Amino acid sequence: MDDTVLLTGAGGSVGTAILEGIGDAYDWRLLFHNPPVDEPDHPYLVGDVIDEETMAEACEGVGAIIHLAGDPRRDAPWDSVLENNIHGTKVTYQAAVDAGVDRLVFASSNHAVGHFETDRRPKLYRVEGEFTLDGTELPRPGNFYGVSKVAGETLGRYYHDEYGVDVCNIRIGNLTRNHPPVDYERGQAMWLSYRDCAHLHDCALQADYDYEIVYGISDNDRKYYSIERAKEVLGYEPRDNSAEFE
Amino acid sequence: MDDTVLLTGAGGSVGTAILEGIGDAYDWRLLFHNPPVDEPDHPYLVGDVIDEETMAEACEGVGAIIHLAGDPRRDAPWDSVLENNIHGTKVTYQAAVDAGVDRLVFASSNHAVGHFETDRRPKLYRVEGEFTLDGTELPRPGNFYGVSKVAGETLGRYYHDEYGVDVCNIRIGNLTRNHPPVDYERGQAMWLSYRDCAHLHDCALQADYDYEIVYGISDNDRKYYSIERAKEVLGYEPRDNSAEFE
Repeated sequence: MDDTVLLTGAGGSVGTAILEGIGDAYDWRLLFHNPPVDEPDHPYLVGDVIDEETMAEACEGVGAIIHLAGDPRRDAPWDSVLENNIHGTKVTYQAAVDAGVDRLVFASSNHAVGHFETDRRPKLYRVEGEFTLDGTELPRPGNFYGVSKVAGETLGRYYHDEYGVDVCNIRIGNLTRNHPPVDYERGQAMWLSYRDCAHLHDCALQADYDYEIVYGISDNDRKYYSIERAKEVLGYEPRDNSAEFE
Repeated sequence: MDDTVLLTGAGGSVGTAILEGIGDAYDWRLLFHNPPVDEPDHPYLVGDVIDEETMAEACEGVGAIIHLAGDPRRDAPWDSVLENNIHGTKVTYQAAVDAGVDRLVFASSNHAVGHFETDRRPKLYRVEGEFTLDGTELPRPGNFYGVSKVAGETLGRYYHDEYGVDVCNIRIGNLTRNHPPVDYERGQAMWLSYRDCAHLHDCALQADYDYEIVYGISDNDRKYYSIERAKEVLGYEPRDNSAEFE
């Protein structure tokens, strides 16, 4: 296997967390949507994931992809997520298959299941809450962005079944640097620290699996996303807990 | 509630089966993609479901929608299903919500779960097979058409949760007139007769539910899709069985 790892959406916060944590552990090829302000520490391209030529070039000689690129806005309009997130993920998978890439780690999102959060679960964000999602449930996206992430997971299922690509979908929680969100119970319950984010993606590059959906959060006292599957299959060992910052 | 039922994709085989069986039971408004060859028995429009103006006009004064329109080809290319099936279903849901339509019945497909059919299940299509899908499993589409149908189901989940639209996704099996497919075990196992198809859609217009995923097949001796949910929630009482034609 070629060891180069392609990181799409390298300029975003998840990409930043990954490169800060495991930047020295892989031979990266970064894909930026916009030219980076500071010179990156790794080889890079600038381009769009919906462009087939760009993605063919980006995937050449690559062993694995971490696919983060897309419109990251929670209130992104439909036309944008249809094009950038759904179509962009399809183009990325197709380029991966055409180039013989064995593995794709997909940045899914808590918004894929945002509509499980209803008024009927008042304790959801608190330690006394018991409701938990583990990734086997049918999705309930809370916005078009979430719909697009579910579609990305479904495309991964197809490309895994059809072409044998290893696929790990990480439903990323609330990623913030240094400390959890303040005065925001929901964000604390789904907090993902930068170092846990980097470690989780390291696990997703290394572990042995076929097709997975896991939740990407730290080991917070209160969580309504289970991290058991990530622990069992990926060997995820989170070190942070939002409760320690109260 | 306004009693008019909008039927999109009225010119296809599912639309034909519905109109043959329950054409007299509702005040229909038909939407054809191409001008019909024979003058329809009901008021109709010609237009495209991806056109917002067409859909706004089509949804006016409508109580429920049966949404069949889309590229029906099992080997449809990605760009077509992205536009016609995924985007078209979003436009239809949005027009429905904007017009105050209470209910949408969505023509999903067996292809949403086509990749459960693997070499590891050799008895799948036979009476001695025991593997069964019931609609609670995570989808495994077998082609881009199937991916688009899963995306349509997900859009329905979003529009139900966000706007309270009643949504019934019917994963239609192998619809053929008069008798099941010959020399095609798979098609026999998922056969849906014309009259069972019409009756099932009648049930989906009448029953009390929130968000459902059901399999749309006749009561075949061998089936790897459960019809229990359709019976329980919708009151589906199929009359046909592919085994009676052997």
